[in-house]
Amino acid sequence: MINLKEECGVAGVIIHDPAPPTNIVAFKLYYALYALQHRGQDSTGIVVFDGSKPRSIKRMGLVSEAYSRDTLQDIVGYVGVGHVRNATYGTQTIENCQPFVLNFKGGTIAISHNGNLVNSTELRDELESEGRIFTTALDAEIIGLLLVKELLKQEPVDALKSVMKRIIGSYALTIMINGDLYAVRDPIGNKPICYGEIEGGYAAVSESVALDTIKGKLVRDLMPGEIIVFKKTGEVESIMTTDSSFAAHCVFEYIYLARPDSIIDGQLVYSARERIGNELAREHPAAADIISPVPDSGIAAAIGYSRESGTKYLEGLMKNRYIGRTFILPHQEMREMAVRLKMNTIGENLKDKSVVLVDDSVVRGTTSRRIIDMIKDAGAKEVHLRVASPPIVGPCYLGIDMPTRAELIATHKTIEGICAAVNADTIGYLSADGLVKAIGIDKSKLCLGCITESYPVPIPGEKCYCDKQCKMDDFVPEGEKKEE
Amino acid sequence: MINLKEECGVAGVIIHDPAPPTNIVAFKLYYALYALQHRGQDSTGIVVFDGSKPRSIKRMGLVSEAYSRDTLQDIVGYVGVGHVRNATYGTQTIENCQPFVLNFKGGTIAISHNGNLVNSTELRDELESEGRIFTTALDAEIIGLLLVKELLKQEPVDALKSVMKRIIGSYALTIMINGDLYAVRDPIGNKPICYGEIEGGYAAVSESVALDTIKGKLVRDLMPGEIIVFKKTGEVESIMTTDSSFAAHCVFEYIYLARPDSIIDGQLVYSARERIGNELAREHPAAADIISPVPDSGIAAAIGYSRESGTKYLEGLMKNRYIGRTFILPHQEMREMAVRLKMNTIGENLKDKSVVLVDDSVVRGTTSRRIIDMIKDAGAKEVHLRVASPPIVGPCYLGIDMPTRAELIATHKTIEGICAAVNADTIGYLSADGLVKAIGIDKSKLCLGCITESYPVPIPGEKCYCDKQCKMDDFVPEGEKKEE
Amino acid sequence: MINLKEECGVAGVIIHDPAPPTNIVAFKLYYALYALQHRGQDSTGIVVFDGSKPRSIKRMGLVSEAYSRDTLQDIVGYVGVGHVRNATYGTQTIENCQPFVLNFKGGTIAISHNGNLVNSTELRDELESEGRIFTTALDAEIIGLLLVKELLKQEPVDALKSVMKRIIGSYALTIMINGDLYAVRDPIGNKPICYGEIEGGYAAVSESVALDTIKGKLVRDLMPGEIIVFKKTGEVESIMTTDSSFAAHCVFEYIYLARPDSIIDGQLVYSARERIGNELAREHPAAADIISPVPDSGIAAAIGYSRESGTKYLEGLMKNRYIGRTFILPHQEMREMAVRLKMNTIGENLKDKSVVLVDDSVVRGTTSRRIIDMIKDAGAKEVHLRVASPPIVGPCYLGIDMPTRAELIATHKTIEGICAAVNADTIGYLSADGLVKAIGIDKSKLCLGCITESYPVPIPGEKCYCDKQCKMDDFVPEGEKKEE
Amino acid sequence: MINLKEECGVAGVIIHDPAPPTNIVAFKLYYALYALQHRGQDSTGIVVFDGSKPRSIKRMGLVSEAYSRDTLQDIVGYVGVGHVRNATYGTQTIENCQPFVLNFKGGTIAISHNGNLVNSTELRDELESEGRIFTTALDAEIIGLLLVKELLKQEPVDALKSVMKRIIGSYALTIMINGDLYAVRDPIGNKPICYGEIEGGYAAVSESVALDTIKGKLVRDLMPGEIIVFKKTGEVESIMTTDSSFAAHCVFEYIYLARPDSIIDGQLVYSARERIGNELAREHPAAADIISPVPDSGIAAAIGYSRESGTKYLEGLMKNRYIGRTFILPHQEMREMAVRLKMNTIGENLKDKSVVLVDDSVVRGTTSRRIIDMIKDAGAKEVHLRVASPPIVGPCYLGIDMPTRAELIATHKTIEGICAAVNADTIGYLSADGLVKAIGIDKSKLCLGCITESYPVPIPGEKCYCDKQCKMDDFVPEGEKKEE
Repeated sequence: MINLKEECGVAGVIIHDPAPPTNIVAFKLYYALYALQHRGQDSTGIVVFDGSKPRSIKRMGLVSEAYSRDTLQDIVGYVGVGHVRNATYGTQTIENCQPFVLNFKGGTIAISHNGNLVNSTELRDELESEGRIFTTALDAEIIGLLLVKELLKQEPVDALKSVMKRIIGSYALTIMINGDLYAVRDPIGNKPICYGEIEGGYAAVSESVALDTIKGKLVRDLMPGEIIVFKKTGEVESIMTTDSSFAAHCVFEYIYLARPDSIIDGQLVYSARERIGNELAREHPAAADIISPVPDSGIAAAIGYSRESGTKYLEGLMKNRYIGRTFILPHQEMREMAVRLKMNTIGENLKDKSVVLVDDSVVRGTTSRRIIDMIKDAGAKEVHLRVASPPIVGPCYLGIDMPTRAELIATHKTIEGICAAVNADTIGYLSADGLVKAIGIDKSKLCLGCITESYPVPIPGEKCYCDKQCKMDDFVPEGEKKEE
Repeated sequence: MINLKEECGVAGVIIHDPAPPTNIVAFKLYYALYALQHRGQDSTGIVVFDGSKPRSIKRMGLVSEAYSRDTLQDIVGYVGVGHVRNATYGTQTIENCQPFVLNFKGGTIAISHNGNLVNSTELRDELESEGRIFTTALDAEIIGLLLVKELLKQEPVDALKSVMKRIIGSYALTIMINGDLYAVRDPIGNKPICYGEIEGGYAAVSESVALDTIKGKLVRDLMPGEIIVFKKTGEVESIMTTDSSFAAHCVFEYIYLARPDSIIDGQLVYSARERIGNELAREHPAAADIISPVPDSGIAAAIGYSRESGTKYLEGLMKNRYIGRTFILPHQEMREMAVRLKMNTIGENLKDKSVVLVDDSVVRGTTSRRIIDMIKDAGAKEVHLRVASPPIVGPCYLGIDMPTRAELIATHKTIEGICAAVNADTIGYLSADGLVKAIGIDKSKLCLGCITESYPVPIPGEKCYCDKQCKMDDFVPEGEKKEE
Repeated sequence: MINLKEECGVAGVIIHDPAPPTNIVAFKLYYALYALQHRGQDSTGIVVFDGSKPRSIKRMGLVSEAYSRDTLQDIVGYVGVGHVRNATYGTQTIENCQPFVLNFKGGTIAISHNGNLVNSTELRDELESEGRIFTTALDAEIIGLLLVKELLKQEPVDALKSVMKRIIGSYALTIMINGDLYAVRDPIGNKPICYGEIEGGYAAVSESVALDTIKGKLVRDLMPGEIIVFKKTGEVESIMTTDSSFAAHCVFEYIYLARPDSIIDGQLVYSARERIGNELAREHPAAADIISPVPDSGIAAAIGYSRESGTKYLEGLMKNRYIGRTFILPHQEMREMAVRLKMNTIGENLKDKSVVLVDDSVVRGTTSRRIIDMIKDAGAKEVHLRVASPPIVGPCYLGIDMPTRAELIATHKTIEGICAAVNADTIGYLSADGLVKAIGIDKSKLCLGCITESYPVPIPGEKCYCDKQCKMDDFVPEGEKKEE
Repeated sequence: MINLKEECGVAGVIIHDPAPPTNIVAFKLYYALYALQHRGQDSTGIVVFDGSKPRSIKRMGLVSEAYSRDTLQDIVGYVGVGHVRNATYGTQTIENCQPFVLNFKGGTIAISHNGNLVNSTELRDELESEGRIFTTALDAEIIGLLLVKELLKQEPVDALKSVMKRIIGSYALTIMINGDLYAVRDPIGNKPICYGEIEGGYAAVSESVALDTIKGKLVRDLMPGEIIVFKKTGEVESIMTTDSSFAAHCVFEYIYLARPDSIIDGQLVYSARERIGNELAREHPAAADIISPVPDSGIAAAIGYSRESGTKYLEGLMKNRYIGRTFILPHQEMREMAVRLKMNTIGENLKDKSVVLVDDSVVRGTTSRRIIDMIKDAGAKEVHLRVASPPIVGPCYLGIDMPTRAELIATHKTIEGICAAVNADTIGYLSADGLVKAIGIDKSKLCLGCITESYPVPIPGEKCYCDKQCKMDDFVPEGEKKEE
């Protein structure tokens, strides 16, 4: 499938100045993954390498459930990669748990991937035509197979470069090849990945919070198309695979996916959300008594809206901090209870108030409707929905979990229609320009595909604005598959 | 031990207008306990009764882990009680998991208790002297044994009244006696408990959020010393066991324990915390760039401080929402990682800023120190600690998890000493009067024992201000044990 | 209920010559319980005592599942008791997991009980009338409550004597009272219990195999009505509570319950079963090609039959050694598969053969029918069923898991009728006299209640032959229950 | 490694006359694997196919632990394969859990393999040289990769034939290729595999007991080198890939591995073991009081010995039927307890007796020594060890779990030396000719490698007697791997 939803977190740790092989790498990966848990809750894995053989732990579920002190202590090694995964329905099996580990003629490779390849079907067909097999549904396996083919011909960096010419889409990768660590970012810089210094070594992670957690010091984000090699000897080498300044950073990281305390492509997510709130207040002011967020992703934007508008910030919804797996009876009352369990209204804060409700986005509209109904049930006089993103009209092909076009409310309703559908008194969406301005990155370096329906990579049936920068033809050259 | 720390949540549900015995009661208890999870994470239990026999589930751990759809579906009954428990170290065993269930001559009783009896040792000795045995470390077992003695002599309400004359301390109880549900609150109203209407019946719970979750409608808090009977026939009867207007509601529910969306004794916790922040700003203003909370318990107070002071509210700390069990290596670096995992700084929001940090309380001072160090490491210029409660100088004997007097930093350091110890630039504690004013309940109706060292119940070695209202002599009359 | 089925195993271990408190006691109990696993598979528990506080592990399931190295290592103490339980349906809950532990005025008691009290209802009523409560469905709780009442008046041995005057039925007990270990056997010696020396101490266990396993040396069986005290100082004291030579050892221990390698009341179970086979061959010879057992309980009897008859012993049925929990689809074919999974025929050994099939007993007849059908399906020409016990016509009130009288095939069918019902060509039951002779214990010292319908203790509605030896009146003295 | 120990069980089930896709196939595989549990206890898996996609369950541990009713019900399909595995130390990870499932250009393949390839290193190198990768340590992955290469060129049967020309060693395979089921046996027939009819379809399994369990009817063993195709249409086709009558059935299946109720290559294992006992009695008679087996594998041979010798059969050792995982303290006494836990002596049967002890084999001699010591401790006067196999002097390269040559006691001690080392009074090994005669299969069709050190397949450094029949050159064509 071309649009697998794969919100994931990746991490890689290498220690070049250690005592003899130790489990410190495994523990640092464990803490880093814990900090990236919001990027994937379905499965997790850690693989470490001690110079001779890989040791791994893979499990379905949360980081807190998957690892034990005992199992972590057993996996010693000076380098390793880890992964958390939020899987598309139907692929949540132990086989699809990353990192993907393979042995080949040249040794051992472990790959953690965040992103989605848009030409995975073609690559899979091509590899299968060569008689190769697949044991998982992962893009990481495609990348692994391509990489091995190249590694038989050239050095790791050149091999990675060749692979990057073949794969189209989004990818932030941490890869362990025979004891060296590689961090790789796709040429459009769609998925975030940064690296930092840690005690005696380096770490590369999806978000800077993971560095904070393991007492690392953020050095910088990887550049679009950059490969960084962290050698077992302690050397660090950067290789740029593209001379283009083109980028297409995912705006949804800022809107809702990333943790607010992360710095992504130089922008603190929290600040970007505050500025989104400022913009939203300017674009869509409302005479109201309070500004209230949909927690947690709407909090910073609501604070920003409140500050800009001068209307008081007051929480009207409270999230239950202990929600794990819940189950419900097939019964309407039970379903409503399950919603209330996750988010409750603070009645007194809402009663007889005119409320500006700040939410990060409106996708299908069903959640917004449910929340606004709850707020009105709690006695709010008016609800003015302010959305911290423009209307979502295109699906995401690069890994963000979004529904099909038909399910997106903004594809088949007017703004007024949406307002009525979600039971708001007024609705205001942030403009695309407002969003871009708030994020603080030039529009030419952002992916706005879900908003503009124009994508940075070639997708069959969709508009592409990447012709100059990332021509499909560059990636899959005419003659290339001939001889295979 | 006289001061067991027993932060717990209780719930009781009865349905008088149901179809034949159903598992709806078990599911409602499950949702109610989920909403009360913040009151206890060590163990949980549900007992339901179908008119003939009790069925129960008890497990160590969180609500999300303890129950499954299958086990809940199996426990049918029209009435039941549930419990979540935060246990004192050493008592976290399956035997001490509540509700406490007993069978006696007159039938079946299940008891859920939140609170701490200060005369438990005496009562235990007395009961043991009669040849009675204990199979748990629970006050609920003491209550159960006393109750059974009385039930052999009188009707349930009178029996409960007699028991209430014997037990001193804090208790919010939901009790199932032979198919009727009883909610009981101690005569000083120390622990919160309220009740509401639900579809076809009633529920009594520690906090109103649990009613919200099960789509109940809050009727009111129980009065100090009140017993409410919810009969299987649908009748509801209130019995007042004290004519005194004395009360001693725990202020720590408002300061940090209760959920902000709960209404306790008529006060929305969120609003009380906001007003605490207002007061704090008035009492201890600070020239600063931002007001920042220690999440989550400091958020509403920080918002209040910000609004009163006019200084901007900006979050400088971010909590990891996915923290479950973690484990650490015996290694200094690992311990610091474990702290960072739970709470991270948002560097850009703090850098070069003068920060007013609003925390709910300072107990030992160690956590405050660690947080302020982190904030200064993140580049804050100044940290002005503003504490949403007065200095804690007395232990709690009524169930709040607090250390011994010797461990309380305010018992052996001056305010200046504390300021230096926690590495703050200035420190400001809310005054007791300010706290009382903010909560909005008359001082004579609040327990301020930990702040004033004067307690509402007689504690050996401590001052008591309860002489008129709750004389120890009333409870354990000289002659009383004679005839037994 | 008067006839709870409680096949259990008990163990007690005390070490008087140890290093400081150690976990060796916990580990020895663990191994002893492993050896007694055949006596109970539903739950298990171990409690050890270090002189100040008890530490326990209790879990549903098998010994292999319930304990871990970590949990066992944590429970240190020099004395302890353990239990495995095979529970009556509906009582398989964690609350009913033994040992039953209680705290009372005089300290801590832990009780492991194998057996069934026939006056439990009366005792429960009596205790409840005194205002006492029950938190379990266990006879051990009744025993504990009675014991505590006496311990407040007299020394442990006298207290135990007094309790033994009150309880009627079967009981083998290992009891820890404040750091001393007591082993107790009911006055009719119905349930087995023996003791032996172990390194640095003593152990008392249900069957001698448990001593073998922990490298103990069997000293002897307890006598009916004997109490043996194993003091923490190393002294061992025996107290006889009855001067009668009356006994009623359960014959079913020899027929099927006990392990063949155990010695019970001086008789090796294996040898008793062999002699049963000899007798059976003499009483019910058959012209056949082979003698084949129903494994495992029929093996020794079949060997005995073969040797006596001179007909060759050849296994026709094979048990699957790996059967744990299985589950089946609600589907006839599946049910048959589940049977085959547990026991398979060895076709070639049966084909065209005339088979003497030796089974330990015929209860409902359904299992026999199923097995004989399988054997005939496998091609056997004739099946001559030889049963290693007389027809079962009475229920067991002393703890053996047997159905109600109505379900016992021998209560409503003639021998010929049973033969037809189970599809055998001929059937031969061992005579009661043959059984007694084979066991090698005088008939006056055996309980044959299920065979003769005459019981060694008074059961309402049943004949009793115990008048002289264990008058109900002795146990429940005239005046004692008057006032209730 | 050339001599991985891979004792495994395989199963395949196809139903051609079903209702729409059903979970009956999954349940039949589950029952079949339960019956084959003795062949592998480390991990298990089931894969079923419904015509479009495979669904699988894989878990570490026993069949009783790995599957639940829920998980089995979810995997519907009309065809499937299953596996139980006994893994070499270090390879017990979830990745190595079979069946091995792969997707390739032509669809989906699932492979269950029992056996060991002796040229796996060469094949792995060859495949890696082509740039292929390995994600497991399994021979099944090698077979899968070779098979896919061939399937791109030819039809499944021809592809399998080509693969069989490349792989050398032992293999019994059940393979699902795109909805058809294939059963394959290596050209020397080393590993057992048979097939039978089941309701509406067919099953192929390692041992006939698995057919018995699922109510199947054994048709016959596969011939050496045979492929049988079970088509989704119900057709069954046999393809012989060798015209040689050469075979090398593993004798250890008869000696100890297979279940006694299985029929392998036409011989009932139970009968073979009885005849082994007869032979042993003739070759090594002993004047003794009793003949006693080491359970369970020595039972049938002991019965045979007893019958032939006329000396009475009496069990002197008893196995604990409940042994699961056990753990021991690092303590000598504990280790002895762990041994006793598994096997106990029946003292009375041994005391003052002269015992013929019949064991299946003597490998290192340590277990024999421990058992004989126990028997002598129990009071046996003399122990005459009779071994149901010849001295083991060569390692197994075909998958039986045996130690290195240096660890085999018979490689460095004389018969007298062994007798002394194991503390026996006399020792008698069955002769190779006696073994062959007892099994009832011509010597030219048995693998006696571990006894004769002459192997049926070429092993570097070992003698091979296969030159005519299975020339290495046939398998690894001239030009392909010159240098090896």
